[in-house]
Amino acid sequence: MEEIQEPPTRIMVAVNQSSIKGYPSPSISSRNALEWTLKKIVRPTCRSEFKLLFLHVQVPDEDGFDDMDSIYASPEDFRDMKHRDKIRGIHLLEYFVSQCHDLGIACEGWIKKGDPKEVICHEVKNVRPDILVVGCRGLGPFQRVFVGTVSEFCSKHAECPVLVVKRKPDETPQDPVDD
Amino acid sequence: MEEIQEPPTRIMVAVNQSSIKGYPSPSISSRNALEWTLKKIVRPTCRSEFKLLFLHVQVPDEDGFDDMDSIYASPEDFRDMKHRDKIRGIHLLEYFVSQCHDLGIACEGWIKKGDPKEVICHEVKNVRPDILVVGCRGLGPFQRVFVGTVSEFCSKHAECPVLVVKRKPDETPQDPVDD
Repeated sequence: MEEIQEPPTRIMVAVNQSSIKGYPSPSISSRNALEWTLKKIVRPTCRSEFKLLFLHVQVPDEDGFDDMDSIYASPEDFRDMKHRDKIRGIHLLEYFVSQCHDLGIACEGWIKKGDPKEVICHEVKNVRPDILVVGCRGLGPFQRVFVGTVSEFCSKHAECPVLVVKRKPDETPQDPVDD
Repeated sequence: MEEIQEPPTRIMVAVNQSSIKGYPSPSISSRNALEWTLKKIVRPTCRSEFKLLFLHVQVPDEDGFDDMDSIYASPEDFRDMKHRDKIRGIHLLEYFVSQCHDLGIACEGWIKKGDPKEVICHEVKNVRPDILVVGCRGLGPFQRVFVGTVSEFCSKHAECPVLVVKRKPDETPQDPVDD
């Protein structure tokens, strides 16, 4: 009996940048989530069976933080800022897309703006991935009360199976809110 | 360059029986979780890359519910009841193990007693799977307050990445607590 060729499993990975400002470097939990997904799900021998979809949600306030001391004197200044945000987002996606490209894994990446948890669930609805992977900072119960977590929200509300990859204990930075 | 052979990815799947009593049939969410895992992660072409570990946690109170009208007059009566529980658990595991066996996927199954969410997290600690898959009934916010969910607890506390597979809307039984 001939087996029907299944389309690749589409894995959406929500990626964000490190909260250490100044450079569009991926957060520890984003890097960890991709690394784990490649090692444990995609694996070296099944690369043609999966397609990765990288969604980066830019938070307008956060991304503008570096510009607190800037002076906006003309519409051009705002345009410059938006342009800078865009460049940052593209650099972040480049990190993830390059890794997949080097391994010969099909992928796509795109950027949205807004509240990450809401936007991620909205994109799941639109894009219909088979699975959503979200990293998680692994905060303690005390921090979680104030910070909330994107992963908890998505686990409940995203309309597809959700995989939460916690950060490894040895990767926790000194300031636990950092990342 | 020779690639180092990675050991198979060990996927622990927590399985339970349907709350419709009288027969050790798997719950809709357990069946769904396995079906999804086989289709979207293990896939037909990657079967040798994964090993499935089925954990069934028997809840002592729930499993004894059918025996409410029974009369216990001797130690043998209790022994019989425990024996019956065991048989049920074994039948449930058989359902899952048989499916994997038929597909040529390596697997193991075992039974523990206790509070499912606590026991699952404890077993993750002992067995160290690469990933834990839990089904989810997809209760609304109102029901969740009272029922709580095993999947939420495990997402937070299990010491490995956790994949929550929600039940599809068209599989929801008429009584939402049923399953």
